[in-house]
Parts: sequence; C-alpha cells; structure tokens
Amino acid sequence: MRIRKIGIITKPGQPEGAQVASDLVSWCRGQGVEVLVLTTLASEIGQPERGVAEEALASESELLVVIGGDGTLLAAARLLEGRPVPILAVNHGGLGFMTEVMLPELYPELEKVLDGAFTIDRRVMLDAKLLRSGKTVGTHRGLNDVVINKGTLARIIELEARVNDQYVSTFRADGLIIATPTGSTAYNMSAGGAIVHPDMSAILMTPICSHTLTNRPVVLPGDACVVVTLKSTSHDGVYMTVDGQVGVKMATGDSLEVRSSSEEVLLVSPQGKNYFDVLRDKLKWG
Amino acid sequence: MRIRKIGIITKPGQPEGAQVASDLVSWCRGQGVEVLVLTTLASEIGQPERGVAEEALASESELLVVIGGDGTLLAAARLLEGRPVPILAVNHGGLGFMTEVMLPELYPELEKVLDGAFTIDRRVMLDAKLLRSGKTVGTHRGLNDVVINKGTLARIIELEARVNDQYVSTFRADGLIIATPTGSTAYNMSAGGAIVHPDMSAILMTPICSHTLTNRPVVLPGDACVVVTLKSTSHDGVYMTVDGQVGVKMATGDSLEVRSSSEEVLLVSPQGKNYFDVLRDKLKWG
Amino acid sequence: MRIRKIGIITKPGQPEGAQVASDLVSWCRGQGVEVLVLTTLASEIGQPERGVAEEALASESELLVVIGGDGTLLAAARLLEGRPVPILAVNHGGLGFMTEVMLPELYPELEKVLDGAFTIDRRVMLDAKLLRSGKTVGTHRGLNDVVINKGTLARIIELEARVNDQYVSTFRADGLIIATPTGSTAYNMSAGGAIVHPDMSAILMTPICSHTLTNRPVVLPGDACVVVTLKSTSHDGVYMTVDGQVGVKMATGDSLEVRSSSEEVLLVSPQGKNYFDVLRDKLKWG
Amino acid sequence: MRIRKIGIITKPGQPEGAQVASDLVSWCRGQGVEVLVLTTLASEIGQPERGVAEEALASESELLVVIGGDGTLLAAARLLEGRPVPILAVNHGGLGFMTEVMLPELYPELEKVLDGAFTIDRRVMLDAKLLRSGKTVGTHRGLNDVVINKGTLARIIELEARVNDQYVSTFRADGLIIATPTGSTAYNMSAGGAIVHPDMSAILMTPICSHTLTNRPVVLPGDACVVVTLKSTSHDGVYMTVDGQVGVKMATGDSLEVRSSSEEVLLVSPQGKNYFDVLRDKLKWG
Repeated sequence: MRIRKIGIITKPGQPEGAQVASDLVSWCRGQGVEVLVLTTLASEIGQPERGVAEEALASESELLVVIGGDGTLLAAARLLEGRPVPILAVNHGGLGFMTEVMLPELYPELEKVLDGAFTIDRRVMLDAKLLRSGKTVGTHRGLNDVVINKGTLARIIELEARVNDQYVSTFRADGLIIATPTGSTAYNMSAGGAIVHPDMSAILMTPICSHTLTNRPVVLPGDACVVVTLKSTSHDGVYMTVDGQVGVKMATGDSLEVRSSSEEVLLVSPQGKNYFDVLRDKLKWG
Repeated sequence: MRIRKIGIITKPGQPEGAQVASDLVSWCRGQGVEVLVLTTLASEIGQPERGVAEEALASESELLVVIGGDGTLLAAARLLEGRPVPILAVNHGGLGFMTEVMLPELYPELEKVLDGAFTIDRRVMLDAKLLRSGKTVGTHRGLNDVVINKGTLARIIELEARVNDQYVSTFRADGLIIATPTGSTAYNMSAGGAIVHPDMSAILMTPICSHTLTNRPVVLPGDACVVVTLKSTSHDGVYMTVDGQVGVKMATGDSLEVRSSSEEVLLVSPQGKNYFDVLRDKLKWG
Repeated sequence: MRIRKIGIITKPGQPEGAQVASDLVSWCRGQGVEVLVLTTLASEIGQPERGVAEEALASESELLVVIGGDGTLLAAARLLEGRPVPILAVNHGGLGFMTEVMLPELYPELEKVLDGAFTIDRRVMLDAKLLRSGKTVGTHRGLNDVVINKGTLARIIELEARVNDQYVSTFRADGLIIATPTGSTAYNMSAGGAIVHPDMSAILMTPICSHTLTNRPVVLPGDACVVVTLKSTSHDGVYMTVDGQVGVKMATGDSLEVRSSSEEVLLVSPQGKNYFDVLRDKLKWG
Repeated sequence: MRIRKIGIITKPGQPEGAQVASDLVSWCRGQGVEVLVLTTLASEIGQPERGVAEEALASESELLVVIGGDGTLLAAARLLEGRPVPILAVNHGGLGFMTEVMLPELYPELEKVLDGAFTIDRRVMLDAKLLRSGKTVGTHRGLNDVVINKGTLARIIELEARVNDQYVSTFRADGLIIATPTGSTAYNMSAGGAIVHPDMSAILMTPICSHTLTNRPVVLPGDACVVVTLKSTSHDGVYMTVDGQVGVKMATGDSLEVRSSSEEVLLVSPQGKNYFDVLRDKLKWG
C-alpha cells in the first residue's frame, strides 16, 4: 500500500534543517504525497498555513521523516505516543547512532519507502513509573534510557535496585542508567556499559561512577521489572531524566519502576546498511 | 518421581573432595540410593570395585552431584555430552559463581532434591566448530566461553568477526572471548565485559586488550551465528580454548563458528538463593 | 621536642565521635597535654568553656587529632590554611583511605607521637583559581580533587583543557576531575582513573563519562599548570567543587587554573602500615 | 656543532622503507654528511659495500634516523645500548606514538637538525633483571614495557608484587605490565592503564585481565624498585617480554626486578608538535 501522507519533523530553530524540510515539502507535492508539519516548522519554512498540531501530525501521518540527530528522533518518538508509524530518520548535523540515513540518500530512500520497499527495525522502549508513598506520581516512556542522577554538589547517592522483586544491590554512585539496547550506545557506553544489539529484548542497568568498583553493568531479560529506590537524601536534589529530555526531581523514598514498553518505535531500515555498519562508522573501528 | 541413582564427581587428586564423596556414598546407601563414581574417584575413596566408566556414569545417573569449583562443574557438564541430567553443584575449595550450594547445605539440599522438591536453572551452552579450508576439523561445546588467544610472545593478532554473515569488525587484540550469560562472570568480566543474567538467551563477544579502545564488548541475540576468522599469523601460535579446559591450535585462515547449543546444562537451584544473592556474595557488593 | 598542645576535630553532630573526643580530652589532661577544641565540639562534650575559634585552634595546635572519615580530614586540612601542623587521622565510622589509624590504635599511636616517635607523610595539595574575563574571582585549595561537573539535567558539557598552555583536548563529558595522587583513590577511581602513589608529584586529569571513549585519564607532572575552560552553556548550570565540599557555579567562558600548591598536608604515618597495606585493605585485594 | 655522521635504520625486508633510506643516503651525500647503514639495509639498497656492523653504527653515528613504526624505533633504541645518540624517528607505515615525524617532513626536519636547531625529548627506560634462586640470570632494557604473560592455555597466573620491599598484592591475572610513561600509550592503554606524560619520572604497574576487579592500575614514583615473583606454575609456561621483542621463559619462584634505567633514549622533538598533538591525532580525539 502506497504511503500518501508524510509528517516531517526537524530540530526547531535550525535554518538548515528547515531548508531541507522545505525542499522535501516541494518534492512530496511533486509526488502527489500530502505533507504535515508542526506549526513551528510551518512558520520557519514560510508556509504558516500548512502547520498542524502535534496530535494531528501524530495521528494522521503514515510515515514520519525526522531530520536531525538522535535528540530530534527521541523527541519525535515521544510525540507519537506509541502509535505504530514508521520513522525515516535522516542524519543532519548530529552524531546519531539511530539516524542512519545520510542527507544525500534521503530521496532515493524515500522513493523506495513510498513504494513500500522497506524493512522495519522494531526498537523496544521503556516505561517508567515514579512511585511516591506507593502512589504513581508520573509515567514516562523512553527509547534510550531512564537515568537517575545526583545533584551536582552531592558526591554520591544511594540507590537500592530490585529486579522482579529480588534485591540486587544498593548502588553508591553518581547515578544509575536503565537503558534499552537502542540506548546502549548512548549514555550507557560513556558509563562503561556494553553494546547490546537492538534486536534483543533486554534491559541494561549500568551504575554511573560507582563507588564500589565491582558494581559492574548488568544486562537483564527484557521482561524484567526493575525497581530503583532512592535511599539517601542529597541537599541539592536527585533527578530522573528520560532520554535526556525530561527531568523530574525525586524525593528520598521515591521508587522508579521500569519495564519494557508494549509500544515500539518503528525505524525504517536503510538499504544496504546494517547495525554493525553503523557501529563501525560511529565508533571509528578499523 | 524419586531419584534412585546418583553420580558423584570431584576434582581428581584432592583428598578432601574425595573424603566428602566418601561420606556422601555412605549417606546415599543409607537412603537406599544407588551411587555411581568414576574409576579414579573409586580408587581415591578405597572402593575400586564401585568405579564405572564416564559413559556409564553419564548415561545412568539421574542426578549428578559435583563437588569442587566452577572448573569441576565445567568438566562434569562436558562429560554429560548434552544429556538432560540435573547437576547439584557443591562449592568446595573454589571460587565458583555456579557452585552455589555450600558444603554444610549439601545434605539438607540433597534430601529436598531426592524428594523432587527442587527447581532447575537451565543454562545455555555454546557449540563451536573449527573450520579449515571450509571443512570442519573439530567441534566443541562450552558452558562458559570459547576463547581465541594469541601466543604469549605475539603482541597482537587480527580476528575478523562476522555475525549472521554481517561483517562486524577486525579486532586487533590479545584475543576474543565468545561467552554465554553463564560465562559473563568468568573471563568475560576480567576483560571488561558486562554481567548478563543467565536467564537470557544471548551470546557475548568481548575483545581482550583491544588495541582499538572503542572496540567495546558486544551482547548479541542468542540465535546469532558468530564466525571469527584468524587473519594474521603469529610465530608462536594462536589457540582456541573452551571453558579454559581444551586447547586447539589455529592456523591463519581458520574460522571458528559459534552458536548457542540445543543442549543445556540443568543446574539444581539452591533453595532461597537467587542469582543476585550469588553476585553480591562473590563480587563483595555492599 | 615533646608536643604540648593538641587540637581535636570531629565530624559535627555525631555523638559517638564526640564521646571519643571527650575521652581523649581527659586522657590528654592526664598526660599534661593542653587540648583545644572548636566551640561546637566543646558544647557537644559538655565543656563549652573549653571551646576556641577555628583561627585559634589552627594557629596554636602543635598536633591535630582528627576523628572521622576522609571528609572530616579534608575539612580539617582546609581549616589549617596551609599551616604545617601534623595531623593524626583516626578512622571512625567512615571509609577513609587517609584515616589509616583505627580507633583501638589511637592511644598507643598518640603516645608515640607525643614522644616525637613518628614519621610524616607529606601530601601535595592543589590550588585552583577561577578566572572570569581574565580576572580571578575565587581561589580554592584541595587535598583530593577539583571537579567540574555538569548540572543534573544537562547531558554533556564541553570543557577545553590546556596544560602549560598546550592544547590538550575538548572533553565532551559529564565533567572533569583534576586530582592529586592522594585523591586518586577517591572520585578519580570511580571514574576509571589509575591509582597514583602519594609520594609522587603529579596532577591527574580524568574525564567523567566521556562521550569520546578514547579520552582516557591522563597523569601529568606535578609542576604542570592545568587550565580548563567551560565552552558550552548548560541551562541548569555547571559547578566546580573542591574535595566535594565547596561548590561554585561556573559561567560559559570561565576558566579554572589548577596547579600543585606550595602548601602540603602533613599526615602522621601510623606505625607499621604503609600505603599498600591501606590499598589492600580498602580495595579488598586478595 | 654540525652533525657529520648519520646512521639510518629501517625495518628489514620492507622495500618501501629501503627506498626511503636509499633516497636519504643520496641526499646526505649531497649535504656532505657521511652515512652509516647496517649490512642488511646496505644489501637492500644495492650498496653492500656501505654496510657496517651494529656495533660500528651505534658507536660512530652522531644522529640516528629511524624509518618505520614504534617497533623499529624500539629495536634501534636497543641497538644503541644506552649511548646518548639523538634519534630522529620518521613514521613510515606504522601506528607510532613515538615516531612523530611524517615522511614529507623528513628533509625539512633533517635540515634543521643538521644545523643543530632541535630540542631533545628524553625518554626514561626500564632495566629488568631476572632472578632465579637469588641469582641474576638475565638483564634487559626496555623503552616501553616489561611484560609477564601467562601461556595461552593457562587461565590465570599468580604474581606477587613488591615495591621497595613493601608487599603490594598477589595479582591473579593473565599477566602484569610494568611500563614507562612512554609505554603508557602502548600495551598499558589496551589493558586499561592511564596515559602518563613522558616528562614524568614514573613506573606503571598494570594487571592484564585481573581476576580481582579492584586490582586497578597503579602509577609509582620513578625511583621505585618493583619486584614481581611468579608464584604459581602453568603447564604451558609463563613468559617475560621486553618491548614486545624479547621473550624469556620464567619458572615458578623466579623474580623480575624492574627499575628506571640510568640510560635514556633521546628523541629529536619535531618542530611545532607537542605530546598532546600526537595524542589527539593517534587517539582520534575531537
């Protein structure tokens, strides 16, 4: 079935990205494909009348073209709220482990995609629930990771981790990263965690600068339920962040419950490029 | 169904282990349970007439009691050749991430096991095939890991890795570890790899002292087929070892094909002790 | 020359530490040794009339007995403001790589020290100068480390490092640790830095969770001048901390100039215990 | 004082290096500078009559031009046997942290050097003494490192380390690297050791794949005396290597005594390129 409606998302406030989007809008019209953009981007490309709200873009698009780095892709995934819309992620001005299509390949890739000639890379997400005195005070979804981090002026915090109600350890560390395989090449890697292939169903638990040197990164089954409880107070706060984009302050005694989400992000897999091709390129192997 | 035949295995040449075995033989007879021991152990406990061959012990035992460290357990697993016989691994004089039952708990545990009141921990194994000029010249099975290691006097070797026929990287390193989740706490951990929960289906690929610092450990899906080809020659040889117990010399151009085995090791899970309890204890967390 | 005036410092608000101090005060009087305590501690031990100000304690004490963990010792060193007063650091309720004397050894050690039978461990300190638009806006002295750390909600900051006016690298990381050999076993070790023997004249530069995996810890000569400039802004701030006790907010463009101090901390070296004895004990080697 | 005699050294058996050497011989004659080459290289460049023995080359050259990678430089340093002859190391076909002059810069650099317009980088070396039953059975000198390594088929060896006769630890590991600051970017870095600036007087002690995770790399003062004793036997041998070029088998009970050498290697420092420039380039920082 041919795709007839495309949503385009760029990093706001970047003229170069807006220019790429503007060209893409023209090209799509030439192909008889309807285009949806958010009101911010619509203004940036001088077509304010084309702008739609996030809700409309997320529910009507049959394909999302995201132009930017991993950050822009993570924001786009957030916007979809779990809808199974394929994302064609075009790397533009960012590092990007996930945005594997380069700009010159945009139109050739897009033509194939419009013809339905593409495969989908299903990426697991995490659902995080913040619990205070036993009550849920917030829910969050992330594609890369859910991170608990100490305030800047605190030296160390204490985090008790349980997996499927089994006590794991009380981490004395700068913080703790709970990551998806997709997020394994993001913050997790900087903190010493292993690379986990994104086809796997897994949850990574990696301490940040652990005081105890033997507290090594742990890879858990994808159906695990991880609960992390903040044991000690820090005078300048402890924060939970999701994909580096949302920050919520935690109080002593708060728990974060993290599980694999039932929703997935559907990435359009670029032709002739597999996960290891991307790793070699980004990590400058060989 | 009550167990009626038990095989006992110890580390050969260790009088203390033999003494434990000897006591256990008496205890079993008191319980009306038949006991099988290898001829070596039979001599050591002064009952040479009781000794049977490896084949007999492996095929007739309904339960294997292994007394020693992880090395003894790995040897016992090798002896079973894939037969689904539960192993009760008793830690005696070794470090042991897998031999979780301590000596004082041997008889209480064994009583429960004889009554059928136990759960089984299924541990994935690896099948390794050594290929030379396209022909299989050896097959091996390991519970912890298959390791390719440079000779002592060589500085570095080159190993090309492919996963499901996708090129991954050419590692310039001291060697490469292909490990099971069970083996993640063995050599893999010393080389910087992550801990992977043994309930997972996964294959770990961890370079040893990689020349390229970004060549980080990778965790792959359990159904992956890993092929490692030795690219460069070293004047003093390159060796493949399995569970640290078998060594085979590799020639330039040789490939090692590693997959998850269809056989598993069945460990009797001790009462009231989970995987994280063992980790905390062995790694001195907290 | 026999010591006649001892200053005692404990961690404020800890009744057990105060009790140890109280006993020590009595003991000293029995030995004909004058004792100085801060007003806070004087109240805690119910002898408010004995309390003196920090300035008096620092300038009059011929020996400082510090009861607590490394944090208490770092605070005591700060209080001395570079005066060459020997410190006898007694480990009480803390981890402590520096507080090597255990409580039961306090009096035997003290007797030897009063008799002049002791050796001194000279520990290098760091002088840090915060520069804004070329002007010094703050000076700080640390025994362990000077740390630049991103705010909790920022993912990464950019820090340009120069050594002796030679450009080193622009670190994209959570932060950067500039440490003394003494501090090598503190935060530096959690971030992956090496242990550096405290007899050395050296300055350590260790990135925290560097984005670039090859940005490994660097050990520099003790006479090096390290200048770190904050290149990028983070919406929730970047902070400099000294020994984990002082926090100063940095602005984009600010530079931190760090050198070895001309002042040293003089630790009384406990009898029959060397640096490696402490390492083995604290790091649970062997 | 103008240099009048140059020795040239290349990696034997490499036609391209020989070609560079051949051109250099002609250039030197045009400059009125005498050239010395070893007999092997003399044959390779078709001028067998020019060849001299190692002894003659080492004792008569006023400057050594080394064309190759770090390995060729290490061999040249070995050949000098401590004579204070400056080395101009030209990177040709190798990785090379020390061979910082690139081929196109050879002649411009050489002209400056002949005029005496150059600075010298003094690099500390290590002297290693192999002791058996208290007797010296071999002495070795290295610029990078002295390494003790297990045989390929052994899993782990036990090495007891003492520094200045103080017991440090008994390492259970694949081996142990004793390195100079120069060698800190070689094998030491692959094994997780820190980078140590080559202006420092220091000895690095870095375990290879230590079984005990807290056995972290240690940096010692340059005047330290490190003694490593092989405690356990391995059926396939334990070897000591120096700069990856010399291998000596060790027996259980053998000790290796390592100190900073009184001899240094004198590297000609290329114009306008400092140590950090080389690090950034080789490690692909930024």
